[in-house]
Amino acid sequence: MIDRWHDECGVFGIYNNAEASNLAYLGLHALQHRGQESAGIVTSDETIMRTHLGMGLVQEIFDESILAKLPGTHAIGHVRYSTTGSSVVKNAQPFYADTVHGPIAIAHNGNLVNAGALRRSLEARGSIFQTTNDTEVIAHLYARSQKEKLLDRLVDALRQVQGAYSLVVLVEKRLIAVRDPFGFRPLVLGKLKDSFVVTSETCALDLIEGEYIREVEPGEVIMISGEKGLQSSRPLAPAPPRQCIFEHIYFARPDSEIFGQPVYEVRKALGRELAREHPVEADVVVPVPDSGMVAALGYAEESGIPFALGLIRNHYVGRTFIEPEQSIRHFGVKLKLNAVRYVLRGKRVVVLDDSIVRGTTSRKIVKMIREAGAREVHMRVSSPPTCYPCFFGIDTPTRKELIGSSHAVGEIARFLTADTLGYLSRQGLERATSYGPYVYCDACFTGNYPIRPDRPEGTQLGLF
Amino acid sequence: MIDRWHDECGVFGIYNNAEASNLAYLGLHALQHRGQESAGIVTSDETIMRTHLGMGLVQEIFDESILAKLPGTHAIGHVRYSTTGSSVVKNAQPFYADTVHGPIAIAHNGNLVNAGALRRSLEARGSIFQTTNDTEVIAHLYARSQKEKLLDRLVDALRQVQGAYSLVVLVEKRLIAVRDPFGFRPLVLGKLKDSFVVTSETCALDLIEGEYIREVEPGEVIMISGEKGLQSSRPLAPAPPRQCIFEHIYFARPDSEIFGQPVYEVRKALGRELAREHPVEADVVVPVPDSGMVAALGYAEESGIPFALGLIRNHYVGRTFIEPEQSIRHFGVKLKLNAVRYVLRGKRVVVLDDSIVRGTTSRKIVKMIREAGAREVHMRVSSPPTCYPCFFGIDTPTRKELIGSSHAVGEIARFLTADTLGYLSRQGLERATSYGPYVYCDACFTGNYPIRPDRPEGTQLGLF
Amino acid sequence: MIDRWHDECGVFGIYNNAEASNLAYLGLHALQHRGQESAGIVTSDETIMRTHLGMGLVQEIFDESILAKLPGTHAIGHVRYSTTGSSVVKNAQPFYADTVHGPIAIAHNGNLVNAGALRRSLEARGSIFQTTNDTEVIAHLYARSQKEKLLDRLVDALRQVQGAYSLVVLVEKRLIAVRDPFGFRPLVLGKLKDSFVVTSETCALDLIEGEYIREVEPGEVIMISGEKGLQSSRPLAPAPPRQCIFEHIYFARPDSEIFGQPVYEVRKALGRELAREHPVEADVVVPVPDSGMVAALGYAEESGIPFALGLIRNHYVGRTFIEPEQSIRHFGVKLKLNAVRYVLRGKRVVVLDDSIVRGTTSRKIVKMIREAGAREVHMRVSSPPTCYPCFFGIDTPTRKELIGSSHAVGEIARFLTADTLGYLSRQGLERATSYGPYVYCDACFTGNYPIRPDRPEGTQLGLF
Amino acid sequence: MIDRWHDECGVFGIYNNAEASNLAYLGLHALQHRGQESAGIVTSDETIMRTHLGMGLVQEIFDESILAKLPGTHAIGHVRYSTTGSSVVKNAQPFYADTVHGPIAIAHNGNLVNAGALRRSLEARGSIFQTTNDTEVIAHLYARSQKEKLLDRLVDALRQVQGAYSLVVLVEKRLIAVRDPFGFRPLVLGKLKDSFVVTSETCALDLIEGEYIREVEPGEVIMISGEKGLQSSRPLAPAPPRQCIFEHIYFARPDSEIFGQPVYEVRKALGRELAREHPVEADVVVPVPDSGMVAALGYAEESGIPFALGLIRNHYVGRTFIEPEQSIRHFGVKLKLNAVRYVLRGKRVVVLDDSIVRGTTSRKIVKMIREAGAREVHMRVSSPPTCYPCFFGIDTPTRKELIGSSHAVGEIARFLTADTLGYLSRQGLERATSYGPYVYCDACFTGNYPIRPDRPEGTQLGLF
Repeated sequence: MIDRWHDECGVFGIYNNAEASNLAYLGLHALQHRGQESAGIVTSDETIMRTHLGMGLVQEIFDESILAKLPGTHAIGHVRYSTTGSSVVKNAQPFYADTVHGPIAIAHNGNLVNAGALRRSLEARGSIFQTTNDTEVIAHLYARSQKEKLLDRLVDALRQVQGAYSLVVLVEKRLIAVRDPFGFRPLVLGKLKDSFVVTSETCALDLIEGEYIREVEPGEVIMISGEKGLQSSRPLAPAPPRQCIFEHIYFARPDSEIFGQPVYEVRKALGRELAREHPVEADVVVPVPDSGMVAALGYAEESGIPFALGLIRNHYVGRTFIEPEQSIRHFGVKLKLNAVRYVLRGKRVVVLDDSIVRGTTSRKIVKMIREAGAREVHMRVSSPPTCYPCFFGIDTPTRKELIGSSHAVGEIARFLTADTLGYLSRQGLERATSYGPYVYCDACFTGNYPIRPDRPEGTQLGLF
Repeated sequence: MIDRWHDECGVFGIYNNAEASNLAYLGLHALQHRGQESAGIVTSDETIMRTHLGMGLVQEIFDESILAKLPGTHAIGHVRYSTTGSSVVKNAQPFYADTVHGPIAIAHNGNLVNAGALRRSLEARGSIFQTTNDTEVIAHLYARSQKEKLLDRLVDALRQVQGAYSLVVLVEKRLIAVRDPFGFRPLVLGKLKDSFVVTSETCALDLIEGEYIREVEPGEVIMISGEKGLQSSRPLAPAPPRQCIFEHIYFARPDSEIFGQPVYEVRKALGRELAREHPVEADVVVPVPDSGMVAALGYAEESGIPFALGLIRNHYVGRTFIEPEQSIRHFGVKLKLNAVRYVLRGKRVVVLDDSIVRGTTSRKIVKMIREAGAREVHMRVSSPPTCYPCFFGIDTPTRKELIGSSHAVGEIARFLTADTLGYLSRQGLERATSYGPYVYCDACFTGNYPIRPDRPEGTQLGLF
Repeated sequence: MIDRWHDECGVFGIYNNAEASNLAYLGLHALQHRGQESAGIVTSDETIMRTHLGMGLVQEIFDESILAKLPGTHAIGHVRYSTTGSSVVKNAQPFYADTVHGPIAIAHNGNLVNAGALRRSLEARGSIFQTTNDTEVIAHLYARSQKEKLLDRLVDALRQVQGAYSLVVLVEKRLIAVRDPFGFRPLVLGKLKDSFVVTSETCALDLIEGEYIREVEPGEVIMISGEKGLQSSRPLAPAPPRQCIFEHIYFARPDSEIFGQPVYEVRKALGRELAREHPVEADVVVPVPDSGMVAALGYAEESGIPFALGLIRNHYVGRTFIEPEQSIRHFGVKLKLNAVRYVLRGKRVVVLDDSIVRGTTSRKIVKMIREAGAREVHMRVSSPPTCYPCFFGIDTPTRKELIGSSHAVGEIARFLTADTLGYLSRQGLERATSYGPYVYCDACFTGNYPIRPDRPEGTQLGLF
Repeated sequence: MIDRWHDECGVFGIYNNAEASNLAYLGLHALQHRGQESAGIVTSDETIMRTHLGMGLVQEIFDESILAKLPGTHAIGHVRYSTTGSSVVKNAQPFYADTVHGPIAIAHNGNLVNAGALRRSLEARGSIFQTTNDTEVIAHLYARSQKEKLLDRLVDALRQVQGAYSLVVLVEKRLIAVRDPFGFRPLVLGKLKDSFVVTSETCALDLIEGEYIREVEPGEVIMISGEKGLQSSRPLAPAPPRQCIFEHIYFARPDSEIFGQPVYEVRKALGRELAREHPVEADVVVPVPDSGMVAALGYAEESGIPFALGLIRNHYVGRTFIEPEQSIRHFGVKLKLNAVRYVLRGKRVVVLDDSIVRGTTSRKIVKMIREAGAREVHMRVSSPPTCYPCFFGIDTPTRKELIGSSHAVGEIARFLTADTLGYLSRQGLERATSYGPYVYCDACFTGNYPIRPDRPEGTQLGLF
């Protein structure tokens, strides 16, 4: 999946640290792979909450003078690639609002499936919406709650929403972390000396030299306060865990541990299973960098076929890259990848990617490998065919555009011009993750959605 | 009032023109003197409404490609210098929100005095606030209105607010212009061929080569639609007009006509009255540019003392100007003004400004004139002493900081180191404007506020 | 001459001041009207010379951190609008080079008329040219000089060049100021406590609170060093002074004193002479702001016709201003000027500008005044018809484009659609400046060039 | 060598293509790893040559409108990280100058060792220098040549310089490519339909879908013209080839083929030799990404120890990254690298890097691996100890700072806190590159400089 410069969202929160905004900055940098479109930090000094949001990379939005204007001992932060809503700064997060209960800031990773209905209902009761973020819905429900206590109000709100949400919430004196009962998106708890940290992936803890404690569990609500320290509760209706398998397959950083398992371990196991399921006589295993790297190592180890870096990535491609005149040609993936002739020439090549979305990029990669002299090109994919759009926080195209939804594997192989094509089976996926099928959400492969979305595909927000 | 790089707000709206966003851009350029902090345009093509907001000057925020992304035949725009709220892009206007009645965009010039109370009441009913703009209050009230018709809903909202508001409102197919019953801030109606235009000052009409029709009158609501054209009504509780006298004294551009009178004419009359009230034997009348220019011409004409440009303004001072090391000195007004020795040397100088706020700048100007060789410096001010803060849209400091509120004229003269000091009397002001005292709001001179603000001075928003 | 956002160049030098770069920054700010395209500062701490150049306004190019990287007790600076060469940063000045005699930096105001020939000759001897600045020629000649002493080498170079040059030169331990024997461009000497200052206009001295000593005289070379202080010499072949009369008519700031006379005084006298030469029965005298202001005051005083600000300038028009779609209309001068109806309606108007170049802008101004209701429009110009291009540092178009070169006054009046048109005569100009015709260069009116340019008009650099 | 965001220079030239500037843009993008500080393109339409230079990445400097202003069928381009001279835009290349022989533009990769002496000699003959680029020396020598023909003049110049130079030179109608007789830096020749291409590495050819023809050979001069096509000659004094071995070890992209050998192949062989020379009982081979990747694959294959991605690189670290308050800690390499606990915990780890410069970064990496739970850390380096600075275009610190110059291997191991440390031997290096010792320059390991630099270490330009 080389053609994706970005994906979904990352969240970070730290409580009780004199360097809160600085550490949030570092944490967001470590989570940059989860969203490159916008970023923001909200801090609290227990009296005043301050916000800075912007479009672009964390390091482009913040500098020393801006961080200095964000004093306070508590902070939450967010990096975002929009899965709903358009690319404008007002959609950047954390979402901040004044309510009857005082100011509140919310950093949200995930997608609500009943946001549209809730929005219409809230509007009918007089609410106005200034963003297209699902998160705004949560803030409205919180503000309208009649409950007396902070936590009860938030729970009141969350009981009305359905979908994926890993939240970090900041009010003046407290920080709250919530993971929805299905646990779609990751969220981990850590410590840095006397400070608590909550964040999407452990790699953010590593950078700030924090200590990993454990996952925030599906359905768990953690409140951190000065008086009572950390308090955990489970006030939401329980549900069977449905953690996003795609985090392990593609999204999370390979140095992170999520859902209780090292990402690296899972990816390598995926490759090994794939080698068992789809062996082929070949000379070299080549990953599509960077997402296919670890699985390719697993495939190579299991198959005994040598691993090689037959595709080199140009890491300088940023958002401002322009393509010259169409009169020459369309460059697309060539701007990012180049084939290594020496590695590929005359070889029977296994090329390994984590998934195939539309198929157009994979087709170009196969072509590129063949032009570099490969004798055979065998495509291997470390997940089952992606046939269904995601409604829980992953930016996939509509069903129609997913080549896996309408084409048999043989047809796809022909489209890619690959000699053979092998997808990992669902059984292989289960084996590799060492869990049963009911622990992960695999709706993108099966259409077996844990919750039915309220919006028919293709009708809203340009998402489906 | 040389030390003010900016002041309050300007609004612009155009209905039924294929070049709506381009014309809004031009209109905002003509209103740039009313606010340099942020600007924005919202357009409607009768189906979709589009927004672009930014910090800075109109010409820095918009370029051809941005204007091209704002298609539509109706547009409203806003330039802003914050009188409430902080300097962040989310406070930029027009304010846009989705409501149960559909999307609405509001461009607002003025200040509500009961915004705080309304906000608290709305919050108590579950509303959340994302900006510190008063305008957001109006949008909430509109959204919560149970009335069936668009106009009734807006009127419903406006009946609850108190204070200054000249509004231009855009919904998908209609444009509405409203001026509060006191008529604090200006608003004029014009035409450009088949298009209606509503804007703060006639200078915006002049630039787009539109035709001035008349003022939107205090308390008037004008709705423009495709089916019925322009419809005027007066659904708000009537009030005696209280048009901001400071618009004539300082804010408006001298080429505009507001409140039914040419600004130039009023300013010149102010100078003439001042000459009658505070004559002095002198050699030259020198204006503080640019705001004191026209009144100085009036003073010179009436007194027979020659007019001269004894102070020259450097128009290149922008917001990014940095002052070098404090180890040298504080430059302040010198960066903007320089004295013309030839004009001032050995002379008895009348220096004319529109008002004195804190007195510190005037003191520097007197000093500068004296250092250029003036024998005597007689300060003349074309308005009465500014003693009370404004609650209706003008950015004045707290009472404590207003030198006029705590010092007698003689004391102020000594502070300024001026030989004499003369302020225009309230009677002189009345004569110059040719109206009675009850037509204008002159609370900044008299403390006679048409509406009592709900927030005690000094307690809120850093304003007082 | 409203349609000129910029003109030529300004120079500044300061010797022996711990705040040299800060003061150069302020000095350039005061000279910003002399060039808005690029700016630069070179400093010396007597061992190392440091340079910072950029495109844009002084305040956009420099900030605190950049000034902090320019330590040293001596500094020279330059603001530039290109009269030769293209708009690229490598043409920004001061010009800096390493030579066999050590590093040298030159800030140059003026134009050499034999630069092309010298360039060709230098190239023939092996020199290479990296800019299109005339200044580079001087540096080459200096570098090639066989003289032993710094000053002799510079004089050696300057004896070979012909044309206009007011130079400020910095080497590690010395600052040199030179004005060409004709003295085309201004240059003044001042003091700030123990520091010497050399700059184009006295307004730069005023801002830094320096003291004006005297002009650098035509043909004078001033060297300032630590050991010997200020030394003046006159090593260049003497010539009759030919100071640019256009500095007084248009370029210089009215608060400056140049060529030994206050600019304000000269401009006012020009207006008075014009009133005597071209009286007219009228109701109001209106200047084209800002350049026509002072002359209009003179005209009004002499004629007894009241002075009024009938045209208002929008000072927010910067270089980034875009004009919307041509499908509407060409805005041109309207973006900068607006007519004041109240002042002009029904009136017989004298409109006063400093000069007419192509005539197209003046035509629009006449039209604008008439549309504002003027009954008659009488154009008065405070200089004779501009008939010849300038070769000495003023950015005028080719002869062909100068309406004065090909049309009689009556024809021009008809083109402008003015009721009458009156230019100041050359005799009037002489009287107003109180000098004889031989003290000023008035070649733009007479074609009587003090030096013959070596490049035929229209053949080079887009200048002629 | 993770702590190096950049290195030296890359050049690109294309002759006879309607899309010359677009293709140069793409070519420079492919060469971006060779220099991220500045970039530039010069084009020729056979009459006019046009230049655009800037600071930053290729994609930040150029956009569609800028490329559109660079018409012409021939173009050369340059990306640069300064090895001499300071970081200012005037040092950006290609270097452009007007000479008696017409305009010339030069893109230069390499360093001249007698630039200082030549500069002094040229200055003594009257030349002036505006940059600190060595390239300017070549332009001066070319300009001063008395030869009649273009090529003879260039050769005349090059016969006087000593050091490393791979040049692409553009004059109005011709493009010339030169590689110095030692062939220090790479340069390859290719084709794109009817166009000739010359560039530093084959990866630039790959991106534009050009065809690799061959290397420009050490000492070869290639002139491309419309009339005669490509002409090759060898007018320079021959020398034994001394191609930079560090290009293979570290600089070049692994998908390139330089000096006639695929970079990937050489790096893998380096790893294999290293495994033979420095075997160790271990559980996992971990590369320092990205430069140690391929050698680590070789080491793993040869040793039979599994390869693993135990260090993950954050590719979002750009030049604007700020480190928060020092009060927390110094982050350094942690911003770029993170250890994968799962891979390292309890393991005996071989960590492989291409070289060790100061040792401080390697020490942090060892520490990071140990903190991730490694039981043993064995550092392996795929080149001999770097003991001597490079004078031919690689940015290495002074001898004093090179840990290899003053410490024995055992001492370095202790400094790094590594259990063992093994450098590849010079013999291993020779074997891996399959050439003899006399084909490559390995002065950084041996001090055996092919040419003696004229400047004593540590005295000039901050380089040594």
